[in-house]
Amino acid sequence: MISKEDKQIFMQAAFSEAEKARQKDEVPIGAVVVKDSQIIGTGHNEREEKQDATLHAETTAIRMACEYLNSWRLEGCQLFVTLEPCPMCAGAIINSRIETVYYSAFDPKAGACGSVLDLFAVEKLNHHPRAYGGLYLDQGKQILKTFFQDIRKRQKLLKKGRKNNADTL
Amino acid sequence: MISKEDKQIFMQAAFSEAEKARQKDEVPIGAVVVKDSQIIGTGHNEREEKQDATLHAETTAIRMACEYLNSWRLEGCQLFVTLEPCPMCAGAIINSRIETVYYSAFDPKAGACGSVLDLFAVEKLNHHPRAYGGLYLDQGKQILKTFFQDIRKRQKLLKKGRKNNADTL
Repeated sequence: MISKEDKQIFMQAAFSEAEKARQKDEVPIGAVVVKDSQIIGTGHNEREEKQDATLHAETTAIRMACEYLNSWRLEGCQLFVTLEPCPMCAGAIINSRIETVYYSAFDPKAGACGSVLDLFAVEKLNHHPRAYGGLYLDQGKQILKTFFQDIRKRQKLLKKGRKNNADTL
Repeated sequence: MISKEDKQIFMQAAFSEAEKARQKDEVPIGAVVVKDSQIIGTGHNEREEKQDATLHAETTAIRMACEYLNSWRLEGCQLFVTLEPCPMCAGAIINSRIETVYYSAFDPKAGACGSVLDLFAVEKLNHHPRAYGGLYLDQGKQILKTFFQDIRKRQKLLKKGRKNNADTL
């Protein structure tokens, strides 16, 4: 059983990872893998920077944890992530036998822990992680909202700049 | 439209990848990613060798193709794989915008293109690859059957050896 204090520490560590993504202009999503109250894997979204469709926060954190334990089996591990995992990441969580997933914001577009579909509830699959969503929900929603607001602001400025340039021609 | 000859060539290239896995004592699964009738990514199962839960044939082939194109978007690409993709790999196929998946054997335990669930048919997700299963089905079933038969034979011999050793003590 993970304590409330530990949950706070690890969720905030996931948010710190998300901040790393934000600083690179990536959609800010971060994750950590925990075993015995110790972080053994960290990751943030690097899809644009590395132009790799598989480089989500969760897959990177899982790969690091596998390397740390020298085992593809992450039994007894928890994953903390700032956004509900997509099907690829939920699948990686199942494949790596992670025990429990804690996530912040829900993803109505691609969430695979209940929002769009629930992969962990598919009976025929051979592992069924527990998942708890909505941790630090305001923070989880805010980091994404701010990121997309900033993008829209920049796009508006860019458009305005282009219009001004066109007017002076 | 991909020709029958090309389908044969690329599916056999996926089987050659599966053979690489078999030679390393991994469950023999192989994949290739194709664009404009050219292989731009190859991969085989390396889960045990590298102790990494994410290293399936498909994810490796997808990552190589992303690197080749310097783009996470594999639009207009096909993926050929010897076994029906699991949820993680079907998710990676969706995330990378692969157009069409051709696979050989069906996977009643974890197949995410129709056998256990059909991720490509989930309406809310933002990409819906086409999938065709059962290509070179006998070959696809046989390579897996032989692999697991060999494992069982070796386990039997090991057990027999242990019993003989115990008898001579």
